[in-house]
Amino acid sequence: MQEATTNDPGMLDSYTDGSTAGLRVACNYALSAEGKRVRPLLLLGSARAVTSQGVSSAALSAVSRAIEIVHIYSLIHDDLPAMDDDDMRRGKPSLHKAFDEATAILVGDGLQARAFELIADAPDISAEQKVRMVKILARAAGIRGMVGGQYTDIQAVDSDLGLEALQRMHMMKTGALIQASLALGGIAANASDEQLEALDKYGQHIGLAFQVVDDILDVESDEATLGKTKGKDAAANKPTYVTLLGLNGAKSEARRLLAMSLIELDSFGESADGLRDLARYLVKRDR
Amino acid sequence: MQEATTNDPGMLDSYTDGSTAGLRVACNYALSAEGKRVRPLLLLGSARAVTSQGVSSAALSAVSRAIEIVHIYSLIHDDLPAMDDDDMRRGKPSLHKAFDEATAILVGDGLQARAFELIADAPDISAEQKVRMVKILARAAGIRGMVGGQYTDIQAVDSDLGLEALQRMHMMKTGALIQASLALGGIAANASDEQLEALDKYGQHIGLAFQVVDDILDVESDEATLGKTKGKDAAANKPTYVTLLGLNGAKSEARRLLAMSLIELDSFGESADGLRDLARYLVKRDR
Repeated sequence: MQEATTNDPGMLDSYTDGSTAGLRVACNYALSAEGKRVRPLLLLGSARAVTSQGVSSAALSAVSRAIEIVHIYSLIHDDLPAMDDDDMRRGKPSLHKAFDEATAILVGDGLQARAFELIADAPDISAEQKVRMVKILARAAGIRGMVGGQYTDIQAVDSDLGLEALQRMHMMKTGALIQASLALGGIAANASDEQLEALDKYGQHIGLAFQVVDDILDVESDEATLGKTKGKDAAANKPTYVTLLGLNGAKSEARRLLAMSLIELDSFGESADGLRDLARYLVKRDR
Repeated sequence: MQEATTNDPGMLDSYTDGSTAGLRVACNYALSAEGKRVRPLLLLGSARAVTSQGVSSAALSAVSRAIEIVHIYSLIHDDLPAMDDDDMRRGKPSLHKAFDEATAILVGDGLQARAFELIADAPDISAEQKVRMVKILARAAGIRGMVGGQYTDIQAVDSDLGLEALQRMHMMKTGALIQASLALGGIAANASDEQLEALDKYGQHIGLAFQVVDDILDVESDEATLGKTKGKDAAANKPTYVTLLGLNGAKSEARRLLAMSLIELDSFGESADGLRDLARYLVKRDR
């Protein structure tokens, strides 16, 4: 299993201008929350699957931080009252509760910009690699990816979204950024198109599995372990894998997706053991 | 004077997924509003000042659209109830009034990502140029630029911000993106470091002049011409150039800044006539 990178996904430089001190404090509040760091681990696992030659760890660290920052910004905006209206995140008050809504909107906006800056500034990777990364991350984060998925999710309140539409929503909302993590790791390691495609399919299965497990944990886990308000989706009358498939059906679907994800790694041999471990962990986790 | 590029700063591809149709409609609503297109004009003027050799118009168009989209996203978020709470923008209901708050947050987020995607996809410029552009745009849009300026502006309600602090706020809030527009035009035209520095200083003066004129118009113009709610800053008890310098003092400051900006263009000769005209227009405009 890969080691997690530092807990500091892109701490901001010190400012000369005191007027934004409060904004900096809010950014650090967001960045210091302990997450599972799934996307950085996928990115590192992807690079290792492609090559054992050792990709620059400084490069991987910068690009992982960019991905994790996009994820963190999206959580901040998703928690806003106008969106999912969530007061807790990772065991702490969500950013708009700890500060205020305007600050939460601005921290999110600033972090998104910061992610692209981190890629542009990343050491030890070529300009061509960076441009590919910016393009993939921007698409994954944007309207055809994460943002579009969150929009669909919000519209899903009180709707009778079927299984297929639910999957499509999750593939955009969380899958796109998970697939981008794998693609960026692959690009950093100079993966072939075939390798990138296998990583992409692995990401598609494991992204859905991740969401199925989230829905199961939302029913089975307790709030202290989960670190966020549980049962929100059911309360909001949103469809979930558990409401659509039942608890046992959802567990079986998670196992099926895990198996599918592992098949996609067959062409990699032992170098993909990190990604295999990670897939198993994501399906068996308790938070 | 440069011709404006198309009125469509990065219309989105058609979607295959019907679930985001509403989001696409909202994006197009935002993108179709008629603005002054100051930043694209600065970018084109900057490229022409540097070279008469003709930079690819497809490249300039893509990069201008990226800049204008960052500006449009920032207006959408600034108008939100938690921020400046503005119901009108460019003569139409602001996005959260025409749709809803969640959609406005997501459209803004999606457009920011789209801006970086447009740069990554821009034709006829090198990967090195694109990486420099991403870095500059991300910094200008981020916490040390536009986002930090908006934060400072919100904090300024009922404060007794002095002239220097007011200038610093505007240099971040609007100046950073104006300077980025000029830098991106310069980079597209392979400007030297000296040329980029002159363009940056021109941008600093003209960015402040632009804001001084905004404050004057907020007092002197009528709402129909302005296309947005007037007198907001005074009502919110925010300092402005007019409250700090008086109406005549503000007008004299605008003229001073215009003269300073023109001096910075001296090294360019006739090729910078577009930027000279633009500076005069920005100071003499009535909306």
